[in-house]
Amino acid sequence: MNLQRTLFKGNFLQVDIVNEKYEVVRRPHAVGALIYWTECDKLVFVKHYRPAIDKIILEIVAGLVEHDEDPSQAVRREIDEEVGLSVENLTSLGSFYPTPGYSDEVTHLFYAECSGSELNMNDPSENLEPVSLKIEDVWTTVLMDMKTSLALCLSKEKHLLKHFGNGSF
Amino acid sequence: MNLQRTLFKGNFLQVDIVNEKYEVVRRPHAVGALIYWTECDKLVFVKHYRPAIDKIILEIVAGLVEHDEDPSQAVRREIDEEVGLSVENLTSLGSFYPTPGYSDEVTHLFYAECSGSELNMNDPSENLEPVSLKIEDVWTTVLMDMKTSLALCLSKEKHLLKHFGNGSF
Repeated sequence: MNLQRTLFKGNFLQVDIVNEKYEVVRRPHAVGALIYWTECDKLVFVKHYRPAIDKIILEIVAGLVEHDEDPSQAVRREIDEEVGLSVENLTSLGSFYPTPGYSDEVTHLFYAECSGSELNMNDPSENLEPVSLKIEDVWTTVLMDMKTSLALCLSKEKHLLKHFGNGSF
Repeated sequence: MNLQRTLFKGNFLQVDIVNEKYEVVRRPHAVGALIYWTECDKLVFVKHYRPAIDKIILEIVAGLVEHDEDPSQAVRREIDEEVGLSVENLTSLGSFYPTPGYSDEVTHLFYAECSGSELNMNDPSENLEPVSLKIEDVWTTVLMDMKTSLALCLSKEKHLLKHFGNGSF
């Protein structure tokens, strides 16, 4: 049985100390989706300003699971909020700990086939811009977001990127 | 220019608030290496007990970059400490933000061809056990550590897993 107590409690994260030795960050579960936009035969990402790194980086659509949601509901909500597309098919790519060395966060990854006539960012509180890319341009883009790179690799491994079979990092 | 101040300072992480709104975790850079053990034609991992998730999970060898190190020095040290092998060839797989939504941590990933007669864990302070696996067993293992899954995918994409070309998740 681990002993733990809380050292810091914020609005979005909490720091506990386990057995008086290990500082761990408690976070809600997260979701992310690699989006295939059927009308345009393109993949959809967001250019996201992240205060933690003070940079804009290219990421898949992502966000936190809210209290009353399961991961698939959360990812459908995030897709609507961040790029304004409707999900036609959702495939799980697995659930992963991004930083088990110090945080209990779990990220549930999906591949989402989506439809819609245009990209719309519906949540004005977000610091992001939706973008669509041809797959051949994605393979040559430097991707620094870990979940984005993994979602692309796993979608290719699972033959979900069926229109883009010859692409490679 | 972002305003920031520190809300919590621990031994391994710090929480700042940026522009009085965004809670961000400051962490040292990290490294991880997918190890190919040439003598045995196997991949080497560690079973690591992680207090943050209170579980043992299978991960690539990983750790934090120390002040006087560059990432390639840090990963060589971690390989020696955690599994006791010598690095013969080291290939970068890229650098990634595992959680840019709330942390500035960067993880530098490598593929390492290593030699040695046996696996030895040389750092008694670590809660881990080295294990070697045939690649065909890796593809059917449920991997929940994000950097481990990405390192495997990227090593395959980059044709580094040359002895194991037909494996697939």
